[in-house]
Amino acid sequence: MVAKLDDLPIRDDLKGRKPYGAPQLAVPVALNVNENTHRIPEEVAVDIIGRLAAAVLDINRYPDREFLALRNALANYLGADLKAENIWAANGSNEVLQHIFQAFGGPGRSSLGFGPTYSMYALIAQGTGTIYVDAPRLDRYELSPELIREAILEHKPNIVMLCSPNNPTGTPLSLSCIEAAYEAVTEATGGVVVVDEAYAEFGGNTEVSAINLLEGRERLLISRTMSKAFAFAGARVGYLAADPAVIDALRLVRLPYHLSSFTQAAAEAALDHASTMLATVNDIRFQRDRIMLELKDLGLDPYRSDSNFVLFGGLEDPNGVFEALLAKGVLIRNVGIPGTLRVSAGTEAETSAFLEALRQVLKK
Amino acid sequence: MVAKLDDLPIRDDLKGRKPYGAPQLAVPVALNVNENTHRIPEEVAVDIIGRLAAAVLDINRYPDREFLALRNALANYLGADLKAENIWAANGSNEVLQHIFQAFGGPGRSSLGFGPTYSMYALIAQGTGTIYVDAPRLDRYELSPELIREAILEHKPNIVMLCSPNNPTGTPLSLSCIEAAYEAVTEATGGVVVVDEAYAEFGGNTEVSAINLLEGRERLLISRTMSKAFAFAGARVGYLAADPAVIDALRLVRLPYHLSSFTQAAAEAALDHASTMLATVNDIRFQRDRIMLELKDLGLDPYRSDSNFVLFGGLEDPNGVFEALLAKGVLIRNVGIPGTLRVSAGTEAETSAFLEALRQVLKK
Repeated sequence: MVAKLDDLPIRDDLKGRKPYGAPQLAVPVALNVNENTHRIPEEVAVDIIGRLAAAVLDINRYPDREFLALRNALANYLGADLKAENIWAANGSNEVLQHIFQAFGGPGRSSLGFGPTYSMYALIAQGTGTIYVDAPRLDRYELSPELIREAILEHKPNIVMLCSPNNPTGTPLSLSCIEAAYEAVTEATGGVVVVDEAYAEFGGNTEVSAINLLEGRERLLISRTMSKAFAFAGARVGYLAADPAVIDALRLVRLPYHLSSFTQAAAEAALDHASTMLATVNDIRFQRDRIMLELKDLGLDPYRSDSNFVLFGGLEDPNGVFEALLAKGVLIRNVGIPGTLRVSAGTEAETSAFLEALRQVLKK
Repeated sequence: MVAKLDDLPIRDDLKGRKPYGAPQLAVPVALNVNENTHRIPEEVAVDIIGRLAAAVLDINRYPDREFLALRNALANYLGADLKAENIWAANGSNEVLQHIFQAFGGPGRSSLGFGPTYSMYALIAQGTGTIYVDAPRLDRYELSPELIREAILEHKPNIVMLCSPNNPTGTPLSLSCIEAAYEAVTEATGGVVVVDEAYAEFGGNTEVSAINLLEGRERLLISRTMSKAFAFAGARVGYLAADPAVIDALRLVRLPYHLSSFTQAAAEAALDHASTMLATVNDIRFQRDRIMLELKDLGLDPYRSDSNFVLFGGLEDPNGVFEALLAKGVLIRNVGIPGTLRVSAGTEAETSAFLEALRQVLKK
């Protein structure tokens, strides 16, 4: 068995591509993929283990295909009068987005994002045969209702992707931008607007969640994840809030039993302890703001962030800095924006280690 | 929020469709979805819980994107000199198949199956924009090398789906059929042959596994699952054995971190106890053969099966029988083949309950 990838009949559009993903390296300080670096609280861990143990007893049976208990728990967490029928979930928000693209995109349809933004949008579009158009942002990666409106009227997408706050730049997004997107896409194509709120909890102001705009907008889809604020990246739980008809649409494209009994049990237990699980969010926000301040003191140029990470410019040799930090056991991320690097806000100790290492690297 | 599905801009080919899935009903005897109805052994459960508990400690971090320990464990289980580089896995074999269709199918490409067969093939083809052609079988749902060859040369598919043993009919598949398929598709298109061995362990003869044909056939893909023989349906672990280049291809279309830390931990623990986990397979095979015999005694017409279920004909009113059994607390499956029903072989007690209920129903 000695075939090469080129010997195989893969699709033409996959040829020459590399798999998505940041390097997974074992380092003392890993601040590269915007995880919540705090372990989950012991009392929650104990409850999760108890629920997982109960799930093992029936693991020979298929899971609840409708994951109703989990959807109830997620609706309860989001509030805003949402009910289970408004909620969808999948193995990470990537899979939620894939379901959206399968239902509302696909061959002959197009999607629009505002780059630089989460790079999976383009990959999921490609994976589902959907055209992906990358529209530019304003200075410092900001968006405005006018810019969004013009881009939508120009490109007439079936799916508009808005990342709020934006990854990898951290940029907050105003509700007026989302309202403008919805209005414009209604005019242009009658397509859907997806607001990716993976990092929403770090914003600190629940008023800016697009959840508040759901009423009366049946083509507004809000994607969330438990990977970040909930410190649950390993469990792979993404979810969505939208009109019940949207949930019906996603049910047509999901693979049956896509959420395992373990996933459902663990997520339900974590949501039972939502306030405990989210107790680290304030600390992380504090470390993020500290990073912003200290990077400025170092003469660097951090972008404003409502997230648990900071993109910073002002680097002549980002790769050199990245490698020098890695040599000191600190892994951050080069997201490919010239002159910049991105760092996740860790614990106080991790953040201090990063800042100290960076200081030393920049001195040289 | 009162939209209807028809109000939404879903893809045209989804309009009017219903979500896939058998009814999930709480009944005393559920023999409808070919689960292994035996709970997993206590000693294995304890080990699984221990591994899950360990996974909780790091659940704030993303899982191993390459799930290397799991791939090693699966390679070890399959034997035949397979290594981790030959192995892929996903959330159920449905997701494995979806990855295959994304990499080797898609718009402008076609797939071929031999119906009646596993109904997800056509749905996964549709979900990935791949044409699906349903070719007929011989009498009693059998296949022959000649029939397979002719269908492939006629339809020129990029993906050939062979279900071994076949679901929902139970029909065994000979290695000569698989060899013929590979030879014909090599001639016709250079496409891939996928052998779905979800129920392979119930055949009782490891010689018939297509694993034995992998050497020298880099476009032969063998899909497996832990849902059935391993009694692990709730954990959602499907996997694949193939040339390492195939694994490289699937890596291009998978969503990153698609397998959660819990899934990896639980599956690794279960595979450590493979022989214990598979101890029920002989019992299930015994109950299956008992069902065959007793159905014949009842004047019914069971089809030969290498699986953990039996399709049986000779029913004038399958729906009436299905409903009458359900009223007695026994849930089996109407798979839509006229005059037939399908029943999974359960524990001895469940099988007895089914047979006794059926006897009563047929007497009326």
